[in-house]
Amino acid sequence: MARPVEFWFEFASTYSYLAAERIEQLAAGVPVLWRPFLLGPIFHSQGWNDSPFNIYPVKGNYMWRDMERLAAEYGLQLKRPTAFPRNGLLAARVALAHAEQDWIGAFVRGVYRANFAEDREISDPQVVSSVLQDLKLDPGSILAVANSETNKSALKTQTQRAIKLGLFGAPSFTIGGELFWGNDRLEQALQFARAA
Amino acid sequence: MARPVEFWFEFASTYSYLAAERIEQLAAGVPVLWRPFLLGPIFHSQGWNDSPFNIYPVKGNYMWRDMERLAAEYGLQLKRPTAFPRNGLLAARVALAHAEQDWIGAFVRGVYRANFAEDREISDPQVVSSVLQDLKLDPGSILAVANSETNKSALKTQTQRAIKLGLFGAPSFTIGGELFWGNDRLEQALQFARAA
Repeated sequence: MARPVEFWFEFASTYSYLAAERIEQLAAGVPVLWRPFLLGPIFHSQGWNDSPFNIYPVKGNYMWRDMERLAAEYGLQLKRPTAFPRNGLLAARVALAHAEQDWIGAFVRGVYRANFAEDREISDPQVVSSVLQDLKLDPGSILAVANSETNKSALKTQTQRAIKLGLFGAPSFTIGGELFWGNDRLEQALQFARAA
Repeated sequence: MARPVEFWFEFASTYSYLAAERIEQLAAGVPVLWRPFLLGPIFHSQGWNDSPFNIYPVKGNYMWRDMERLAAEYGLQLKRPTAFPRNGLLAARVALAHAEQDWIGAFVRGVYRANFAEDREISDPQVVSSVLQDLKLDPGSILAVANSETNKSALKTQTQRAIKLGLFGAPSFTIGGELFWGNDRLEQALQFARAA
C-alpha cells in the first residue's frame, strides 16, 4: 500500500496552482494530505521581502512564459494577475482548519482559479466566501473557525514544520522525510510514495 | 523539419550535467548547437558571488538529494564533488572554440563526468587535457586555440548573447527567442523545436 504524500502549497505560488489542479487525478490510490503553509516567513529568513520572481525580473518574465506553456499543456486557464504575489493568509487559514473535509481539494482549486485564472483579490474575505458559496458551503461558520486564535497559531506551527522538513519553496511534496520540490516533481513524488 | 535547439550549459552546473548526458539521444533529428557560457557574470549582476546552492544551503542540500535521485533514474554516475562550484572557464573556452567538431558532445560529457562523477578539478589544464586524450585528440593544439585572445573574447560575447536571450541559469535551451530553463524542460524544448 502506498504511503500518504503531504502536499505543501502556498496560495500566492503560481506553480502550486498547477500541482493543486493535477494532484488528485494523478494520485490515484496515494492518500493526499493537504498542507497549506506560508512562504513569507521562509523567504524573509533568506533576506527576501517579496517574491523572488519580482526581485529577479528576468526569472519572473521566464516564469510567466513557462506557466503559459504548462497551463496550455495541462488544459488549465491562466490569466496573469494584475497583482502578484497576492496575500493568501486567509485562504490558508481556511484550508488548514478544514484540511480533512471532502471539499478541501475543490476549495483549494477554487482559490487558485480566483487568483490565477480570474484575477480576483484572494486576500478579500468576500472572494474567499464566494469560493465557499460556489461549493454550497456556509462561509460564516467556516471563516469563524479559520480566524480563531487556535487556528491562527496552528498555521504558524505548520509553517515551522515545513521549515524543519527542509522546505524552501512551493509546491513541495513530502513522504516521511523525503522532500520533492516543484510541480515538475509531482509524478516522481507519487512514484516514491507508491514504492515506499 | 525541426528547428535547431541551442543548448546553453555551464560546466559548474550540476543540472547541466544531466542535460548534457541526455540531449543527444533525446534530440533524434533535432540539430543540437552546443553553447557553453559562464554563469558567473550573470549571478554577479544579481548580487551573488557564489552558487545560489551555497548561498542558500537549504536549497543546496535539496539539490544534491534531487541530483542523486535523478542520476539513479537516468543511470548516471554521481559523486558529490569535494569542491563546488568548480571553475569551468578553460573547459568552456575549449568547448566554444570546438563547438562544431564531431567530438564536442563526448568532450562536454567527459568534463562533466570528471567534475560530478570522478571528483576531479576541471579548472586544472591537466584534467581538461586528459579528457581530450581519452578521445584520442591532441590537447596541445586544442588548448592553444582555446586560449587565444580571439576565443577568450568570443566567450564573453557568447555570455552577453545569453543575457540578451533572457538566460538566468543553466542548463537552458533556446529555439529562436523561445527559452526553456532546466534539465526538466529538455523534452519540452525538443518538442517545441519539432513543432516549430
